[in-house]
Amino acid sequence: MLQLIECVPNFSEGRNQGTIQRLVQAIREVPGVQVLDVHTDGDHHRSVITFAGEPPACGEAAFRSAQVAQALIDLNQHQGVHPRMGAVDVIPFVPLEGVTMADGAALARQLGERIGRELNIPVFLYEAAATRPERIDLAQVRKGQFEGLRELIGTDPAHVPDFGPNCIHPTAGAVAIGARKPLIACNVTLGTANVEVAKHIARAVRHSSGGLRYCRALGLEIKSKGVVQVSMNLTDFRHTPLHRALALIEHEAQRYGVPVLGTQIVGLVPQAALWDAAAHYLKLEQFSMDQVLENRLRYLIRGPQ
Amino acid sequence: MLQLIECVPNFSEGRNQGTIQRLVQAIREVPGVQVLDVHTDGDHHRSVITFAGEPPACGEAAFRSAQVAQALIDLNQHQGVHPRMGAVDVIPFVPLEGVTMADGAALARQLGERIGRELNIPVFLYEAAATRPERIDLAQVRKGQFEGLRELIGTDPAHVPDFGPNCIHPTAGAVAIGARKPLIACNVTLGTANVEVAKHIARAVRHSSGGLRYCRALGLEIKSKGVVQVSMNLTDFRHTPLHRALALIEHEAQRYGVPVLGTQIVGLVPQAALWDAAAHYLKLEQFSMDQVLENRLRYLIRGPQ
Repeated sequence: MLQLIECVPNFSEGRNQGTIQRLVQAIREVPGVQVLDVHTDGDHHRSVITFAGEPPACGEAAFRSAQVAQALIDLNQHQGVHPRMGAVDVIPFVPLEGVTMADGAALARQLGERIGRELNIPVFLYEAAATRPERIDLAQVRKGQFEGLRELIGTDPAHVPDFGPNCIHPTAGAVAIGARKPLIACNVTLGTANVEVAKHIARAVRHSSGGLRYCRALGLEIKSKGVVQVSMNLTDFRHTPLHRALALIEHEAQRYGVPVLGTQIVGLVPQAALWDAAAHYLKLEQFSMDQVLENRLRYLIRGPQ
Repeated sequence: MLQLIECVPNFSEGRNQGTIQRLVQAIREVPGVQVLDVHTDGDHHRSVITFAGEPPACGEAAFRSAQVAQALIDLNQHQGVHPRMGAVDVIPFVPLEGVTMADGAALARQLGERIGRELNIPVFLYEAAATRPERIDLAQVRKGQFEGLRELIGTDPAHVPDFGPNCIHPTAGAVAIGARKPLIACNVTLGTANVEVAKHIARAVRHSSGGLRYCRALGLEIKSKGVVQVSMNLTDFRHTPLHRALALIEHEAQRYGVPVLGTQIVGLVPQAALWDAAAHYLKLEQFSMDQVLENRLRYLIRGPQ
């Protein structure tokens, strides 16, 4: 039976193409692993690589990319609008087929143990791999970022890593490793240069400050374009769908007379999320995935799966 | 190389489940043919069966279903809100893979010749199989419906069939057979019992009276539900997308203070049409089909196609 897991490491490098290529190459070299997407953002100074394969191959590829990131990225030189604490900042595993969430968490632990031991980077397990309730939420784990965590790890008992040394790596910082459901990362661009508007909207829409249950959001300034963004993660798009999060953002933006200029998917999006959006806006009644021609054809060509 | 064609015959029976089952069964009995969808509407008194397979098998299945329709459906007893001229009213072939439009038109001609000869039904070729410009458009071919065409076929030189007898079949009427691109059939339900509103909106949105280029539309009364519908075909959804047709319908409906209650896909819809709609409403920038997770996975599992 096919075992398929996805891995979506985020690296604190969104400008140097040579470094990004070395990261992608390190992943590609592992047999059985396929790179599905590379998303790079100069303003965020961050790259998101999506790859998939069987769990052991994905664990190996994630390790090799972390090794390259540790060698080439220096957090002391890093300034971007997205929060970060490490050269390889976060490594989530996402079970796709024939793999349970528990398998994903086990893979996260194995990788964490190895990165701590071989690369000397403190590792915090998060979401389905978390060892304490307060480490489930990535934003909590990353709070303080590289500069703040440098002081906290080694002194604050709440910041003892799950693996690796009890002090920050001087250039590569720290890393969060976990297992989670598929997530939609989406940047919503607003037609204003005032980052306070984006921050207000992010607070309105995100769960942590009273907003939608499966939504994380940050207000960011994109100086290079003279606009601001609400950078959003939807961690369960079935229960907090894209169209609802966007409607709330547009509602709040209206209060400031600010238009939503566009949205951007970071990495990949499950097709069901787009179908849900289409069905909502088109007011489709009694619509099912079986009415999508290609779904029926797949069945025809390959038989029931 | 795989040759795959779709066939979407429309039958003038939307109430008698026994007859509908016999029609479906006649198609299923042909080896190599797969029934993808059966859509039945009691108000339209019409059923749409979607099936696919290799061209010869689909031609055979279409013939057998026409044979059952000729035997079981009597147009003299038929009253529904959808225009119709035959027991099997229209048989379109839609090339899917490894089949050209010319192949589809050739299959339509072969089937037309056989239905004319063996079932004694006059056949009009339409769209890509049409033998005259004025027969390209299905609405033109069907004009007058069963009752009107009974008088015209055999007397009017413009109504000489392409195949079969030069007179209508007394119970099974006439049939249009053709080849075309994938089409989206969609019913938009309006919150009013006044069919004039639906007719006005249909005229505004359809190509024939000045509306969108790849849109056909009719205003229909759904007495059983106390509402009306704009019943719409989009014959090229890349150039006349669903969201634009719906926006125009909502715009016109507003003028009457009438709400759009919902929409309904008849049969199947290509996934790209839903993605286009999602991308439009969600204001997705630089979005490509490659960002859909399942598309990347398919590539991963099966390799480049």
